Amino acid sequence: MQLSLTDIRELAERILRHHGFTEGHVQAVADTVVRGQRDECHSHGLYRLLGIVATLKAGKGVADAEPEVIDHAPAVVKVNAHGGFSPLSFRQGLPLLVDKARSGGIAAMAINNCVHFSALWVEIEALVEQGLVAMAFTPSHAWVAPAGGRKPVFGTNPIAFGWPRPGHNPYIFDFATSAIARGDIELHRRADKPIPLGWGVDAEGQPTTDANAVINGGSMLTFGGHKGSALSAMVELLAGPLIGDLTSAESLAFDDGSRSLPYHGELLVVFDPKRFLGDDCDTHLLRAESLFEGIIDAGARLPSQRRYEARLRSEAQGVELPDALYADLLKLLEA
Amino acid sequence: MQLSLTDIRELAERILRHHGFTEGHVQAVADTVVRGQRDECHSHGLYRLLGIVATLKAGKGVADAEPEVIDHAPAVVKVNAHGGFSPLSFRQGLPLLVDKARSGGIAAMAINNCVHFSALWVEIEALVEQGLVAMAFTPSHAWVAPAGGRKPVFGTNPIAFGWPRPGHNPYIFDFATSAIARGDIELHRRADKPIPLGWGVDAEGQPTTDANAVINGGSMLTFGGHKGSALSAMVELLAGPLIGDLTSAESLAFDDGSRSLPYHGELLVVFDPKRFLGDDCDTHLLRAESLFEGIIDAGARLPSQRRYEARLRSEAQGVELPDALYADLLKLLEA
Repeated sequence: MQLSLTDIRELAERILRHHGFTEGHVQAVADTVVRGQRDECHSHGLYRLLGIVATLKAGKGVADAEPEVIDHAPAVVKVNAHGGFSPLSFRQGLPLLVDKARSGGIAAMAINNCVHFSALWVEIEALVEQGLVAMAFTPSHAWVAPAGGRKPVFGTNPIAFGWPRPGHNPYIFDFATSAIARGDIELHRRADKPIPLGWGVDAEGQPTTDANAVINGGSMLTFGGHKGSALSAMVELLAGPLIGDLTSAESLAFDDGSRSLPYHGELLVVFDPKRFLGDDCDTHLLRAESLFEGIIDAGARLPSQRRYEARLRSEAQGVELPDALYADLLKLLEA
Repeated sequence: MQLSLTDIRELAERILRHHGFTEGHVQAVADTVVRGQRDECHSHGLYRLLGIVATLKAGKGVADAEPEVIDHAPAVVKVNAHGGFSPLSFRQGLPLLVDKARSGGIAAMAINNCVHFSALWVEIEALVEQGLVAMAFTPSHAWVAPAGGRKPVFGTNPIAFGWPRPGHNPYIFDFATSAIARGDIELHRRADKPIPLGWGVDAEGQPTTDANAVINGGSMLTFGGHKGSALSAMVELLAGPLIGDLTSAESLAFDDGSRSLPYHGELLVVFDPKRFLGDDCDTHLLRAESLFEGIIDAGARLPSQRRYEARLRSEAQGVELPDALYADLLKLLEA
């Protein structure tokens, strides 16, 4: 199915309204999944609507939750999602977060008690569009073993970062601290294909190429050995106990076998380069450009380039939805 | 040579005074290198005094620089090191940084125009002792290629993080975003031993086991492929242009072949859990403990454990300095 961005937006909105989402959530969630689809991040595209509706039906998400924005401290915003999906909370907290970063130089926003399905780059991009530098952290479900360990403790725990580039697409990365997405291991298991060493361990903590041994009783691994593992623990701490919200293990316990989307918190940290640098801001942003030129000149690519290329394609030609996914999405309008 | 911690402290202070360091620098630098030696981080121990004195002699560091602490923004401290070595700047900026974190919830400190030789964990530990959560970033010299690249762009760019654990040694990590320390590749080159694949590439960007090809014309690599590479770029940006200071490439250009210690900036980001969590702080710090228990229960180790074990040994028995290093240090008292 070839569909325009307007078509998929309308489809997403219809599905969300059909399932009782209030208009603010309809707009925020539709915006998020359409951006994912547009940038060909398929696992964060319209596919997510299946998990969103399933989570609602399992009683693990609230379709009409009203986010509560709390001016918690001079440099900290908190948003209590009250069990709702995170994108509307982010959107409602954003203006106060931007204000605080502009006045203080650095500010943080904690989103609490939210169902989390969004790619972090969507939020990073919204902050970078305001000329800000941003980081984001969120846990997930405890599927990943610490380096040297044989039991899952961490979530896939993404870290995202963005830097504004006047006249260019921003420098943005957003990656899981797990070696690979859980979905990729699932795909190998279904196809009965071996996985590369380094993706996971079996129940005894031994390296394995058997996807089934990782999914059933084993654990995924972090990227980058003990360094990736340390970063994953950092994500748990910053976006868990520091903001008074659940770790990946606690989120998985809350899920209680319902296979819902994770329920927990998120932490954003935002810097205002103008407040840091004053009149010299443009000069130093230009120096940053020489770093990016150096990366390209070395023969490497900047992160997110594939996304930006997909975006141009999708804006010109629309997106291709697999027939099976399109059929599943239409079924959501009946269920 | 077996020496007590008091002995090595006195030796470090004598060397620093002999080379014209003002008393504040003597105390701050001696404290830093003694802590490194005590924790058996040999490359950050008394060995560093050789590089510190060489940097002074090359005219790339100022022994009597007076750090200037600037209350830059409600949530940002800047310290202009004025060409001095970073530890005194950190020490003098610390009280204002702590105040800002306690009142605002989050705060940042930029140290500018400093010679940087210190392990970041020393500073992270000072912040964690105040009950704060802390991150630190600093560039170095451009020796490391971005993932997929064939030319050096990044420094070894460490990232450090700390979390207070009441009744336990804190959770602290401090690692280079390069796959390995440059010193380790140097050691292999001198011993004419092959290096493992993944440490570096040759001048054409091809993976190599030849240490010489990496050091002469080639590049080191980051840990964790494109993810580690993205993090390394983040360190350049946060602790470079964002704070108006040099990137690793600019620092290496400033060095101008003198082989001095890197001259650039550092960024610290500090969170106050009490300000984030109020009366519930203790409850949530206790939940963090269940994460650490989970890591240990999974059969993994916490970062810094080896350092803490070395510390106990050194406090009880003193430290072992290689004879050659001790002789080199004594020579610094004559030069």
